[in-house]
Amino acid sequence: MSTPSSLESLIEALRCLPGVGPKSAQRMAYHLLQREREGARRLADALRQALEGLRHCQRCNTFTEAEICERCASPRRDASLLCVVETPVDMNMMEQTHAYAGLYYVLMGRVSPLDGIGPRQLQLERLLARACDGVVREVVLATNYTNEGEATAHYLSELLGSRGIRVSRIARGVPVGGELEYIDPGTLAQALRERRALDG
Amino acid sequence: MSTPSSLESLIEALRCLPGVGPKSAQRMAYHLLQREREGARRLADALRQALEGLRHCQRCNTFTEAEICERCASPRRDASLLCVVETPVDMNMMEQTHAYAGLYYVLMGRVSPLDGIGPRQLQLERLLARACDGVVREVVLATNYTNEGEATAHYLSELLGSRGIRVSRIARGVPVGGELEYIDPGTLAQALRERRALDG
Repeated sequence: MSTPSSLESLIEALRCLPGVGPKSAQRMAYHLLQREREGARRLADALRQALEGLRHCQRCNTFTEAEICERCASPRRDASLLCVVETPVDMNMMEQTHAYAGLYYVLMGRVSPLDGIGPRQLQLERLLARACDGVVREVVLATNYTNEGEATAHYLSELLGSRGIRVSRIARGVPVGGELEYIDPGTLAQALRERRALDG
Repeated sequence: MSTPSSLESLIEALRCLPGVGPKSAQRMAYHLLQREREGARRLADALRQALEGLRHCQRCNTFTEAEICERCASPRRDASLLCVVETPVDMNMMEQTHAYAGLYYVLMGRVSPLDGIGPRQLQLERLLARACDGVVREVVLATNYTNEGEATAHYLSELLGSRGIRVSRIARGVPVGGELEYIDPGTLAQALRERRALDG
């Protein structure tokens, strides 16, 4: 009286997606089979192609189909600026600002002792080698303002600072368009502590 | 300066999953590529196998690997009871109660005029033929207590009732373990209207 085994395998396999538990996996499987067979076929193909075709960029670590990603290969980027982010998604967020023309280094993670990820697991030697290549003049730390992102930034600033590399951190404070009434006290306290002098 | 095309295709393909928008699709794609390559491989295989191996049961409409599903083929079920549910998930929920030993008919949908799904789209002739086969003595309507589930039950009860088939509807009321304080007024009103006389 059980679920057919290929259906069970599909439900089980869908659980490798982040944030998908047994209930959503079941719902997804039935949805795919009943209403999205074409989509399911495309998904299977896309997974195969991505697994075969994508690798890490030799320079910045993000996913690419070539040895070096388009961004690192571009002569139009300012190679003297190196922005360190946790994930490729964060890199995309930075790009969407159109306020940064330098290059990137993607950590593909963050220091997270609870998950057993220390500085060693992040393989920071490559970042260090890159930052010391004589071209980079400033490293901009754009890890998240979470505890783990902060710990990562702190560690990196010590590591890079001790080699005499100029290190900066993206600003933290009240979001653009933010109203003080709706901002958490911690953010407001930081915005106050890190207030900037105004000209004039 | 764009996302590699096989990554873009994967993100796009993940959006066929129910409840997955552009942000989650992006997060899922990176997660699979960075931390779940084995899982992604299994998912691609499971999708292929499910698409190839699963079909609708000739009798109850649920997904099965054979012509007739195990449940319909079982001699231990009471063939005189036929429970109508919207989806295979609902059928599983009914099974988990261990309170039902009859057979099922899965609508694979519900009457939903807004989505263009009327009685015709649900292909109810098969259900009707099944209910009139001389073996079925009672049809238990177990569609959801949503507006659409209710409309479906209403339509089915008229359709089947006009053929002289005994039709019942699962009870609605206060959930087991429910406290009146936390129950919505609509449910409570129904529980009051549909109160049962107690013996003794």
